[in-house]
Amino acid sequence: MANHIGERVRLTIFGQSHAPAIGAVIEGLPAGFRVDWDAVQSWLDRRAPGRNALSTSRREADVPRALSGLNANGETCGAPLAIMIENGDARSGDYSSIIETRAPRPGHADFSAWARFGEAHDARGGGMFSGRLTAPLTAAGAIAAQLLARDYGVETGVRVAECAGIEDRPRKADPIDRALLSKLRGQAFPVLDADSGGRMREAILAASADRDSVGGIVEAYAVGVPAGWGSPMFGGLENRIAQCVFGIPAVRGIAFGAGENSGFAAARMRGSGHNDAFFLDGGEVRTRTNRHGGILGGISTGMPIVFEACFKPTPTIGIEQDSVELVGSVQTVLKGTGRHDPCIVQRAAPVVEAGLAFALLDVAYDS
Amino acid sequence: MANHIGERVRLTIFGQSHAPAIGAVIEGLPAGFRVDWDAVQSWLDRRAPGRNALSTSRREADVPRALSGLNANGETCGAPLAIMIENGDARSGDYSSIIETRAPRPGHADFSAWARFGEAHDARGGGMFSGRLTAPLTAAGAIAAQLLARDYGVETGVRVAECAGIEDRPRKADPIDRALLSKLRGQAFPVLDADSGGRMREAILAASADRDSVGGIVEAYAVGVPAGWGSPMFGGLENRIAQCVFGIPAVRGIAFGAGENSGFAAARMRGSGHNDAFFLDGGEVRTRTNRHGGILGGISTGMPIVFEACFKPTPTIGIEQDSVELVGSVQTVLKGTGRHDPCIVQRAAPVVEAGLAFALLDVAYDS
Amino acid sequence: MANHIGERVRLTIFGQSHAPAIGAVIEGLPAGFRVDWDAVQSWLDRRAPGRNALSTSRREADVPRALSGLNANGETCGAPLAIMIENGDARSGDYSSIIETRAPRPGHADFSAWARFGEAHDARGGGMFSGRLTAPLTAAGAIAAQLLARDYGVETGVRVAECAGIEDRPRKADPIDRALLSKLRGQAFPVLDADSGGRMREAILAASADRDSVGGIVEAYAVGVPAGWGSPMFGGLENRIAQCVFGIPAVRGIAFGAGENSGFAAARMRGSGHNDAFFLDGGEVRTRTNRHGGILGGISTGMPIVFEACFKPTPTIGIEQDSVELVGSVQTVLKGTGRHDPCIVQRAAPVVEAGLAFALLDVAYDS
Amino acid sequence: MANHIGERVRLTIFGQSHAPAIGAVIEGLPAGFRVDWDAVQSWLDRRAPGRNALSTSRREADVPRALSGLNANGETCGAPLAIMIENGDARSGDYSSIIETRAPRPGHADFSAWARFGEAHDARGGGMFSGRLTAPLTAAGAIAAQLLARDYGVETGVRVAECAGIEDRPRKADPIDRALLSKLRGQAFPVLDADSGGRMREAILAASADRDSVGGIVEAYAVGVPAGWGSPMFGGLENRIAQCVFGIPAVRGIAFGAGENSGFAAARMRGSGHNDAFFLDGGEVRTRTNRHGGILGGISTGMPIVFEACFKPTPTIGIEQDSVELVGSVQTVLKGTGRHDPCIVQRAAPVVEAGLAFALLDVAYDS
Repeated sequence: MANHIGERVRLTIFGQSHAPAIGAVIEGLPAGFRVDWDAVQSWLDRRAPGRNALSTSRREADVPRALSGLNANGETCGAPLAIMIENGDARSGDYSSIIETRAPRPGHADFSAWARFGEAHDARGGGMFSGRLTAPLTAAGAIAAQLLARDYGVETGVRVAECAGIEDRPRKADPIDRALLSKLRGQAFPVLDADSGGRMREAILAASADRDSVGGIVEAYAVGVPAGWGSPMFGGLENRIAQCVFGIPAVRGIAFGAGENSGFAAARMRGSGHNDAFFLDGGEVRTRTNRHGGILGGISTGMPIVFEACFKPTPTIGIEQDSVELVGSVQTVLKGTGRHDPCIVQRAAPVVEAGLAFALLDVAYDS
Repeated sequence: MANHIGERVRLTIFGQSHAPAIGAVIEGLPAGFRVDWDAVQSWLDRRAPGRNALSTSRREADVPRALSGLNANGETCGAPLAIMIENGDARSGDYSSIIETRAPRPGHADFSAWARFGEAHDARGGGMFSGRLTAPLTAAGAIAAQLLARDYGVETGVRVAECAGIEDRPRKADPIDRALLSKLRGQAFPVLDADSGGRMREAILAASADRDSVGGIVEAYAVGVPAGWGSPMFGGLENRIAQCVFGIPAVRGIAFGAGENSGFAAARMRGSGHNDAFFLDGGEVRTRTNRHGGILGGISTGMPIVFEACFKPTPTIGIEQDSVELVGSVQTVLKGTGRHDPCIVQRAAPVVEAGLAFALLDVAYDS
Repeated sequence: MANHIGERVRLTIFGQSHAPAIGAVIEGLPAGFRVDWDAVQSWLDRRAPGRNALSTSRREADVPRALSGLNANGETCGAPLAIMIENGDARSGDYSSIIETRAPRPGHADFSAWARFGEAHDARGGGMFSGRLTAPLTAAGAIAAQLLARDYGVETGVRVAECAGIEDRPRKADPIDRALLSKLRGQAFPVLDADSGGRMREAILAASADRDSVGGIVEAYAVGVPAGWGSPMFGGLENRIAQCVFGIPAVRGIAFGAGENSGFAAARMRGSGHNDAFFLDGGEVRTRTNRHGGILGGISTGMPIVFEACFKPTPTIGIEQDSVELVGSVQTVLKGTGRHDPCIVQRAAPVVEAGLAFALLDVAYDS
Repeated sequence: MANHIGERVRLTIFGQSHAPAIGAVIEGLPAGFRVDWDAVQSWLDRRAPGRNALSTSRREADVPRALSGLNANGETCGAPLAIMIENGDARSGDYSSIIETRAPRPGHADFSAWARFGEAHDARGGGMFSGRLTAPLTAAGAIAAQLLARDYGVETGVRVAECAGIEDRPRKADPIDRALLSKLRGQAFPVLDADSGGRMREAILAASADRDSVGGIVEAYAVGVPAGWGSPMFGGLENRIAQCVFGIPAVRGIAFGAGENSGFAAARMRGSGHNDAFFLDGGEVRTRTNRHGGILGGISTGMPIVFEACFKPTPTIGIEQDSVELVGSVQTVLKGTGRHDPCIVQRAAPVVEAGLAFALLDVAYDS
């Protein structure tokens, strides 16, 4: 069982790529809240593929329908909010050869899922491992973000810090504040430096021309989190955010911290250079640097929450690859096809933001 | 609530640095198992500080006592296994100035814990945020490792891949097999290249001479995990391992994958270069490379599980640092003291291994 | 958060009486299982109101639609099984006076829900407290029953042991075996003694003529459960069954045990008369009596599981009752209306059976 | 896994009758609370056997020791409160014949535990199924009661409503208020009518003279619970209280409601006679009767919480009983011994109160 997360706000996600629908059930939302569905839709649109040449050609409507949880006025009523997104464009035929031969695609979950669930695994479109399952997570995170803003003044944001080996400038955002989040919010491919972003997109198109794919790094932010959210040991902000963010397909790593000498780079620092010294800023305790990314001992410090998540290149490529036919146990070669997905980093960015928002709301209610 | 973890094997950890005791309650162990307590002790000894100049001067006995869970023959009986480690050497006096002034130490949880729990926070020795709390986790992981070995033939291991900016050679272990684990197992400071390890220790001593500290990177392994352990979404191996490993103080990041182009480096690869191609190895499906670190879609592939965890430099340094007196809200300077902890990476290594072993056993029972 | 239950099989229920839909998400079902949807439908039909004069006039289609969790062959695939039942006949108008005045109906959750969720509570048709929410539980239990039968040979059953003060004969079933379950299975109003059942129905009609209602007692059975399912303390069969069965509206009590001197009657026994002596029955350990209802120490004994659940009379009556207008705080009288629900006991019976089946499957997988 | 309970306050209980210790870990207590340990001790003394002729001869000290969770001032600090009670008087020898022959005692968990855990089950003194395990639950409940009183003004109480077939007068307490709780609080054998209590004790002694045992019914109360605690479906007050109370050995049933026509008696009522009409009592919404025991839809109504728990007669009797030797599978007779436990109802009463208090605090924090 792996499709639910959260202690105080509980998210249960269901669906497969080619099932009739995907969706989410969210327990623990406060009653009397009017969800901004346009905002939810805009988050879903940010993650949707098929809008341009940068991603897979599948077009998804991704219109969420609230099955329950709202009263006659359209406000949350205390009952679980169930959201359904119907799977319109499910072309199972595309995957028939995979199903027939059970030749697992390298980099996908085809083989491990077969080892786990056997013949009954729904391999169509990756089944329950499809990136489509991030749509309900995104919807839940978009709602969490609204509650974080309304009740705590917390704002979240996200950026493509690196893609196809090309770094945004600066590689590490500084300062991290509401102005930065505003600047990023409007962008379909969110970067700080437009030129860098342009080169990233060119690199994606180049990979696409080769029917290949690229990866990248997403940096995520939360501004306005007060000191005191989170818990020690296994209930820390890092633990909960990581548990959520590793739910996004293709994430290979996560590291916390803001600025140059944070995250994995912290390993090369000395304590005197890494510790964030405290100072009084108009009566408020703050740190001059934020190498800890707003978290000490699993608990927020009042400084911005910052982490980065690393995405491998999309495994869906159109180039010949070695594989094995599971039925019959013979070596085979997966033919190159037109179907490939050159980059998911920009679409994954709102999902990372959603994961952060959901985890934060859950921790807020638990602190 | 943050002190428990696990779905099928449930670990609850209690204690503070200066409480009468620390310990763990483990639910869900199979009945009829004879714990190898000598092996548990050896894991605890690996993580214990005070053995040499490389770490803090506190000496801990760390002898676990089973309060319950064993039958008259000393085997697990199906009841929760409760383990207590008494806190012998608790010199609260050392922390009196911190308590009196509430001047939070930079890089420690003093401030965020105060924001979370208020005046009642047990600040002595870092309280519940102390590295001491990793002792019960290590004991639990040592027991999990025994069950993994007995029931599944799974072996775990760990290495200091980088410390104080000095890399072990090779930086990424290859191949990862039982021979590698054997080589690492006997070492107090586990590295592949003795020369590199020597330079790491020199760097630690140099930092110690400056009353400063260093960080590093631990690489962890599990060999023999069959294909099919784990689940999609939030119950994947990465999610569960990360949730556990971020419970270790000073961890700043985690990344999965074996070899050069894995982990955060995967972000710079193309799909054609990152996908691990399948081949038949004597009838068994394997991959020639293991950039996914033995995990696809959250589920094991049968290849070794590999990840690395990044540790910041120990925040406990003996150099003057800026801080704030929380009571009274005035700027202050924490005086440099003789007490400092130049490196925890080698002691944290068995804790990372323990976290991996515990998470793996829990996932195994849930698959 | 209260809408999920289960450790190894996790059921999350969503919906309100007048929401677009109600439904369930079931995690943890084994892959490769072909649900018998006709059987699920027959369970749903057993609990559906509106089939005759004995219950409320609302007619519900209650056709479950699987949104996810099935593969192309219609088998479970390892992904959560999401079931939706659309709310067709939702006549919100009927409840307008309640909504306008907020005059809580005695015996309903109107007042306590208002205290809990405030104005935003969806009061239409009882909202999330409606008996309609037992439909998804029934569907989940019907599926659990199929797995219990397939994998363990366990059969469940249920009977109206008492209704409107009229006892079925015998009041306590004896013996409890597969023949008993077969006899009960076909009946819309399941009793052992047809004459008693007839008098119960007459009593219901008499209460209905008075626009009043009656209660009753349901006895539930599981035959074929092997010894060794369940756990001590809070994970015992009684704990888990009770946690589930109290999720059914109108249940006021639950008691375990088979035969005359069990359940609450056990309080009047002596140990020598209540202990179930063990004997060897063809090599198998059994007890001659089964006053413990197949459970000792929370764990099954191999004897039939037996308990009874007590239902209060339906609170929905058509007679004038005192209430209070919450808005304005004035005393009021709820006018008698034609809308009343004279008895839910026979419709609740399959829900009790479903609760038993679901709890049993969850415990089976956890043992 | 069955030894933990609670959503917001998490209680994990460990121990066996003859293990070195029993104890509890409580997560989620507020920081800064000074536990009244004398009060905890008095609750433990109420449940301790061996004080008089009414119970088993084992004498237990039952002095709880806080291993962690308190700061230097003795207040809760936010870390889990770990409590250990050492098992002093553990006379394993008494149980040797049971262990040697594996002849399960009727009415005990010996057989079902053997079926569940096999040979490794710690059968000494009932192992993890021993009534001793209620000591940590009682300690946790005593602490919860202190927080309920401090933060919400809630008081709990308990009474032996029936024992050995003798009813206290009145059988159903009315009214249920703080005066009632005061009257009950001082009593070792809490009843409303001293004469009835005397006859109960005589009946216990008479059973003891026969080396037999008796059962009874405990009625439990909480006064001062505001309207609005609890949740629908599986998180209702009944569900959570029942899940906790069935953790007490020998409980066979639970029923909610105050006064004559509540609990199982409700099954014989009509709705017009069972619904609790609302009225305004000085601006506050109350009900004139409280047949629902302070709960509607799983949520508190502001009226006293009332339920009764039924206890079977203690299975530990000194009379010959039929059993089976599991090793060798032959019929046997357990010889009558001097060891018997004529009644646990009065000792179980504070455990029921503790279970109520713990469940209430958990629900309060979750509402």
